[in-house]
Amino acid sequence: MSEKDWRRGDFPVLREHPTRWADVDAYGHVNNVVHYALFDTAVNAWLIEESGVDVRTLPAMGLVVETSCRYFAELGFPGVVTSGLRLARLGTSSVAYELALFDGPAGDDGPPAAAGRFVHVYVDRDTRRPVPPPDPVRAALARLER
Amino acid sequence: MSEKDWRRGDFPVLREHPTRWADVDAYGHVNNVVHYALFDTAVNAWLIEESGVDVRTLPAMGLVVETSCRYFAELGFPGVVTSGLRLARLGTSSVAYELALFDGPAGDDGPPAAAGRFVHVYVDRDTRRPVPPPDPVRAALARLER
Amino acid sequence: MSEKDWRRGDFPVLREHPTRWADVDAYGHVNNVVHYALFDTAVNAWLIEESGVDVRTLPAMGLVVETSCRYFAELGFPGVVTSGLRLARLGTSSVAYELALFDGPAGDDGPPAAAGRFVHVYVDRDTRRPVPPPDPVRAALARLER
Amino acid sequence: MSEKDWRRGDFPVLREHPTRWADVDAYGHVNNVVHYALFDTAVNAWLIEESGVDVRTLPAMGLVVETSCRYFAELGFPGVVTSGLRLARLGTSSVAYELALFDGPAGDDGPPAAAGRFVHVYVDRDTRRPVPPPDPVRAALARLER
Repeated sequence: MSEKDWRRGDFPVLREHPTRWADVDAYGHVNNVVHYALFDTAVNAWLIEESGVDVRTLPAMGLVVETSCRYFAELGFPGVVTSGLRLARLGTSSVAYELALFDGPAGDDGPPAAAGRFVHVYVDRDTRRPVPPPDPVRAALARLER
Repeated sequence: MSEKDWRRGDFPVLREHPTRWADVDAYGHVNNVVHYALFDTAVNAWLIEESGVDVRTLPAMGLVVETSCRYFAELGFPGVVTSGLRLARLGTSSVAYELALFDGPAGDDGPPAAAGRFVHVYVDRDTRRPVPPPDPVRAALARLER
Repeated sequence: MSEKDWRRGDFPVLREHPTRWADVDAYGHVNNVVHYALFDTAVNAWLIEESGVDVRTLPAMGLVVETSCRYFAELGFPGVVTSGLRLARLGTSSVAYELALFDGPAGDDGPPAAAGRFVHVYVDRDTRRPVPPPDPVRAALARLER
Repeated sequence: MSEKDWRRGDFPVLREHPTRWADVDAYGHVNNVVHYALFDTAVNAWLIEESGVDVRTLPAMGLVVETSCRYFAELGFPGVVTSGLRLARLGTSSVAYELALFDGPAGDDGPPAAAGRFVHVYVDRDTRRPVPPPDPVRAALARLER
């Protein structure tokens, strides 16, 4: 299925992000950089809420090693953007997510304005060596996988 | 009344702003700069929604000439911040707003995490000379004043 | 050649970007989103300076349709990051750039901290239909290609 | 002396900040929020460089309790902004700085585009109770005061 055919219903986790005035650039639309701020927020807010722990205090941390985004339609201000989040691949120490951004609230319908990918590798906070995701994260990912 | 005594109920306009992962700085709290991004969003989203026109297309634009913020408590991620907006003073070409940021959704209660001031001067887009606020803005401000 | 083998000398355009306090996230390193703000800056500053025109005033605008980044090493604050920019592919209406970010000033040496891709499609500002890049942009790209 | 009469030469610490594409808002000028990102950067980069320690690792941290800015002229992209930093007042646990932003590099001359104030209160990282600035910070401030 092409990314352009993704819909809100294809994602187990949806989150609403109101846009901010400063998100808009000289062309009057949400700047391409902001999409990654929403991806980052979607992943980390879900991780913290679903795992029940503040992931920033765990001995292993998720380092972002790869991100990408394709842009299909412009987003504006004021407005609400809904992110969709799902698991793409769970490796030994890495976790790849697929994300989409939809214009409008979670209850709307329609094609995505953007679609992307976000890859964490878990590393020991001190040695920065790859390690498996910490237990509370693994448990949350197992629920996302189903 | 001290700014620390301001409550959500003292503001005619409330708006919820979820925090973003990138809002947090090296100290783990929402960076002092982000408060101004929320002020800016509160003022401009209200102006656009209440006036019914995209203020960016009007012949006069609101130039920000003065802002300030006092910080009383830390804000975090994930979380929702509620901004309160009210009119402080309406001049010939200037509009001063008072704003507060409250930790938690609009329905919560409690003291502000921050309080500030935001002053627009309306100028002609071409000459940059001060002019009265455009009619749709004046009408919106009149409703805010009551 | 692997992206990790890219060096400053492989890029015809280098630009220094001091990091900002707010670039750093809760993990104490430059947030993954900021890399895209530097890519965006590298491309647009070069376009404006090399073409000699403010690209924002042209009848055709570059819409960002695809971006990606791979992260190899952490960046910090305070510090200077050097971006390298080169042309990857020039299509009828699209321009793909390759970018790298290096820790330290332009005169330093060493492997990249990140590498990415940034694709513009030129569209008519009014109709949003694809068009060839405007003449001053084409001339700048021709010089970059050599 | 009015803030509009401040010049680069009135500040013991100057720092150059290139603007970024994402700094510019829908009106085509640097958004009012960005000025605070530059203030923050000017203060913290100077503190880290002048004290010789990473202030983020000290047992006491500087909490921002008050900031303000007055805007006199628009800033643009691409461009370089020079910040000027000086000590306004050193209290038992608080440090107030005065800052100005000048359009163009440090070697240029001319009136400020903006002027502001930035106040840190040092607190114990665990108890968040006010404490005197840590020794390396005090030593740096003593040199700034002269």
